[in-house]
Amino acid sequence: MHINAYADKYIIEHILFMKEKPHSFWIQKAIALAKQGQTPFGALLVNTKDEFITAYNTTKLNGPTAHAEMNVIRQMHLLDYTETKTLRLYTSVEPCPMCMSAIVWAGIGSVIYGASIDDAAKYGKQIHVNSSEIVSKSWLSIQIIHHIERSLCLELFE
Amino acid sequence: MHINAYADKYIIEHILFMKEKPHSFWIQKAIALAKQGQTPFGALLVNTKDEFITAYNTTKLNGPTAHAEMNVIRQMHLLDYTETKTLRLYTSVEPCPMCMSAIVWAGIGSVIYGASIDDAAKYGKQIHVNSSEIVSKSWLSIQIIHHIERSLCLELFE
Repeated sequence: MHINAYADKYIIEHILFMKEKPHSFWIQKAIALAKQGQTPFGALLVNTKDEFITAYNTTKLNGPTAHAEMNVIRQMHLLDYTETKTLRLYTSVEPCPMCMSAIVWAGIGSVIYGASIDDAAKYGKQIHVNSSEIVSKSWLSIQIIHHIERSLCLELFE
Repeated sequence: MHINAYADKYIIEHILFMKEKPHSFWIQKAIALAKQGQTPFGALLVNTKDEFITAYNTTKLNGPTAHAEMNVIRQMHLLDYTETKTLRLYTSVEPCPMCMSAIVWAGIGSVIYGASIDDAAKYGKQIHVNSSEIVSKSWLSIQIIHHIERSLCLELFE
């Protein structure tokens, strides 16, 4: 099949644009945030223009509600968006039911995580209600993508 | 059955002490807070000396995580306690899974509420994971007492 030069260029640029920032790019950013905060937990909220806000776990400083995901959701007014469902939340570890319920209340459309709650439970206490269960008991449909850079995220616990 | 004067007095004082601030006293305070915030949701965190901190829902002002229970837990450092399990959280409506998970992370020992999530679901969207289920999936034993002044709490939705 022949594709002319213009079409070639268009297709390549489109692919490059689509592939420019894959999920692993953002999860690696979440990992860097986790390390910055000296915890296993980093999170980003990203809009359709790939503008983003960041947070890490600050429970030692700010108390038990200051998980990375909660901290980033509390800043979401700083991000430019018209519909919350267009936002993606990236996090090094699957949101606990506190954070996942906050994601539901916030109406965020996609969640992408690295290690799972079951993974994290090998290193500390967890509430064993996974993110998809919270969504299934809500009024929303939220896309959940799991195990992106899982092994790198697991290394954060060690 | 004969009870002597001293025993009578002791029993009565004990009852009076126990009854001085029954659960309904605190739930009525939660109801007053809810009305103050012009939402159905008010909460208090109380220590063993009956010192307490208060909050109501401020989601309109502070975003989706600002439920009454979250707002009160974020202030818990202001309260005097040695063990978090001695604290009681009173709330006009059963904590949603975000708030109940926060209560677990905070290690609060008792939760007392008025209306249930099922009650509240008649008036708006809810995540249908009840407070006892969150506790059962955690590492903690938390006392949950429900339906205190339920009808007064339900009136807050009307």
